Amino acid sequence: MALSTQPYKGARDFYPEDKRLQKYMFAKWRQVAERFGYEEYDAPILEPLDIYLAKTGDEIVNEQTYAFEDRGGRKVVIRPEMTPTVSRMVAARRQELGYPLRWYSIPNLWRYERPQRGRLREHWQLNVDIFGVKDTSAELEMIILVDAIFRSFGAKSDMYEIRLNDRVLVDYLLADYLGLNEKSRQTVSKLIDRMPKMSRSVFISKVDESLTAKQREAGVTEKLLALLDAKKLQDLPAEAQKQPSAQELKTVLDQLKAAGIKTARFDGTLMRGFDYYTGVVFEVFDTNPENNRSLLGGGRYDGLVGLFGVAPVPTVGFGWGDVTLANFLETHRLLPALQPETDVYVALIGDVSHQATPIVADLRQGGLNVAVGAAGKKIGDQLKNADKKGIERVLIIGETELKNGMFTVKNLKTGQETKVAAAKLAKAIKEA
Amino acid sequence: MALSTQPYKGARDFYPEDKRLQKYMFAKWRQVAERFGYEEYDAPILEPLDIYLAKTGDEIVNEQTYAFEDRGGRKVVIRPEMTPTVSRMVAARRQELGYPLRWYSIPNLWRYERPQRGRLREHWQLNVDIFGVKDTSAELEMIILVDAIFRSFGAKSDMYEIRLNDRVLVDYLLADYLGLNEKSRQTVSKLIDRMPKMSRSVFISKVDESLTAKQREAGVTEKLLALLDAKKLQDLPAEAQKQPSAQELKTVLDQLKAAGIKTARFDGTLMRGFDYYTGVVFEVFDTNPENNRSLLGGGRYDGLVGLFGVAPVPTVGFGWGDVTLANFLETHRLLPALQPETDVYVALIGDVSHQATPIVADLRQGGLNVAVGAAGKKIGDQLKNADKKGIERVLIIGETELKNGMFTVKNLKTGQETKVAAAKLAKAIKEA
Repeated sequence: MALSTQPYKGARDFYPEDKRLQKYMFAKWRQVAERFGYEEYDAPILEPLDIYLAKTGDEIVNEQTYAFEDRGGRKVVIRPEMTPTVSRMVAARRQELGYPLRWYSIPNLWRYERPQRGRLREHWQLNVDIFGVKDTSAELEMIILVDAIFRSFGAKSDMYEIRLNDRVLVDYLLADYLGLNEKSRQTVSKLIDRMPKMSRSVFISKVDESLTAKQREAGVTEKLLALLDAKKLQDLPAEAQKQPSAQELKTVLDQLKAAGIKTARFDGTLMRGFDYYTGVVFEVFDTNPENNRSLLGGGRYDGLVGLFGVAPVPTVGFGWGDVTLANFLETHRLLPALQPETDVYVALIGDVSHQATPIVADLRQGGLNVAVGAAGKKIGDQLKNADKKGIERVLIIGETELKNGMFTVKNLKTGQETKVAAAKLAKAIKEA
Repeated sequence: MALSTQPYKGARDFYPEDKRLQKYMFAKWRQVAERFGYEEYDAPILEPLDIYLAKTGDEIVNEQTYAFEDRGGRKVVIRPEMTPTVSRMVAARRQELGYPLRWYSIPNLWRYERPQRGRLREHWQLNVDIFGVKDTSAELEMIILVDAIFRSFGAKSDMYEIRLNDRVLVDYLLADYLGLNEKSRQTVSKLIDRMPKMSRSVFISKVDESLTAKQREAGVTEKLLALLDAKKLQDLPAEAQKQPSAQELKTVLDQLKAAGIKTARFDGTLMRGFDYYTGVVFEVFDTNPENNRSLLGGGRYDGLVGLFGVAPVPTVGFGWGDVTLANFLETHRLLPALQPETDVYVALIGDVSHQATPIVADLRQGGLNVAVGAAGKKIGDQLKNADKKGIERVLIIGETELKNGMFTVKNLKTGQETKVAAAKLAKAIKEA
């Protein structure tokens, strides 16, 4: 029986036109990250299972990872996210590295989940992290960088909205203001995180379930809903606004405005799924109703490096997936028309590949990317092949051309043809 | 207990200095492949187990893969090589694609083996393949491309040797010339492939074991050794030299010489481990005795695409690992001194990060990669941090500088300092 030509479910083959788009996106990511002084790192796609157990979140580790035992009996995972890995790497050289440390990476990540729009089993993710900065200048830089990436793709500020919250503020609101015990807080946090995926009435009944009768009677559910409906910090109760975490968040929001970023706002419903966040969290949403989803997210996680047996390092970082980025660019018609890398296609008439070799070598030496047609194929088929690949310029080499030392350069798009001497070929092709 | 900071055994963390070297190597690979008209593709790291069972070779599939069952009961493998994958992708679009089709990729591959010099569990590999060319112009192009890559890294032609053989010629020699049956041929082929890993006497006794008493008495082992010792086609028996496969090999060797490649020669011991090769095979060896190993290999495999239920497509390709390339460059002192991507480090004196923000934004707008020091850190510590990262140029911003509108640009290598007005900063930094 013939083998299937399909890729593994939920993962993508990248044909050259797909790869070209991916390279375009990665190049922008790299360019902006490096503009901000970030250095690229990488790590193996397999990691010991241990490093995810502590802080990643139960659902992801237990239900969504590609975990297995290697032939030596070690429990390993195809990384579902990069944050534990980068924390491990920083911990390994805790003393030698200089801070602030700015690192980025574009790893591929795997999650076992039902494939759907914006969510695949394999995706790539830009990870940007700054280590060693306690104050909110780290959050500020990170969000300015995110905004710069959007602009590098040609996005306007009304196409996305940056939402911020703070884990410490959430803890204050749930524990002190609403009086929930630890177990209820955990349940309610997870419910808030999954809020967009359920109806308001389901959400309310699930919150009610997690409360004591006394709390329900005291109107805790209604108070919670009011908190979650807050669109700005000033909508929160006065005592919450006085919390240092709220003040900090206000500082970040004010500084973002001063830096010209107008699309950032407080969002009390923002939780982020990972257990490791310790301060400000942020997420960016597409404002287009057709693609109304979270595009990327991040926050402060000061505790992860310390899990590896060294002194903790304050850290802020985010992750931005290639699938959500591509959907965003598509929705807003920001995808550019990408050209093939090949500059010229050499069509051969008859068995002249031997004589064509030094001419082709010269063109390559001159910096041109040259694909050669197959000797013996009809000229029409060779032109068709060039056109199929999107290569605009063709150089025709046959015995007549070799004898006369004059060659035809043709632009397949305009149909224009020029006769050119061998010595002037590179120049003529560049201009065709 | 603290988590371990070590990466998974046999795999590498890439700290920025390591990643920079990898990016340098990948960029050269990409540049030369694109010079020859090849387009980049990619595919998921997980593949169905099936596609390796047919032709990859028993040892690799059964003992050396990372194979496991996913949560849905599918047997999957972290790809150990790229050839079955690219064949699958071509088969999936057999009719739509234009030929000759030139594709390349730089996938990471996994093999479960004991880590050693030049062999790790995870490595990256340049894969270059040309589809749809029956004649040896494909082999010729492929080897010229390999040679061009070596030269792009600054290698001289005496640093490596290109060796060629042909699977059809090997079959002729083993079956017709030596009279081995199919089983003996398989055993002897595998022995020849592993020849460099055993002593000559062990090799001889193992060959003897695979022969009949009659064959041993007829001197088949001695005849085989004479074939394997051949350093050029002319050393083979006259009847072998007349075989079409030998003629073809001669053509390729002659054309390589005509194209200026002098380091290519016939090697009867060259087998290549994979079962899928159907014609010319080649391998490149380091000539330095300290690193006397195979650097890359490839050949013609006309049957793989057809396993996916479509008409076969003649194919020639090779794979070149990043670990062997790095070892080669190191051995021959061809590793360049790579600079960090960050152009300038901004050191802040006092709490001036707010006022520094627009200046930094301007520099980035002007195309400079800028890292900012942490406000509140001592200036000496900030300069040390810049130096640690290998960033040569520092811009100092403090309250005095902001008041006077004159800033200090310092070159940490030369120690030279210049006072510059805000408007001229970008230019001064580029020149510093």
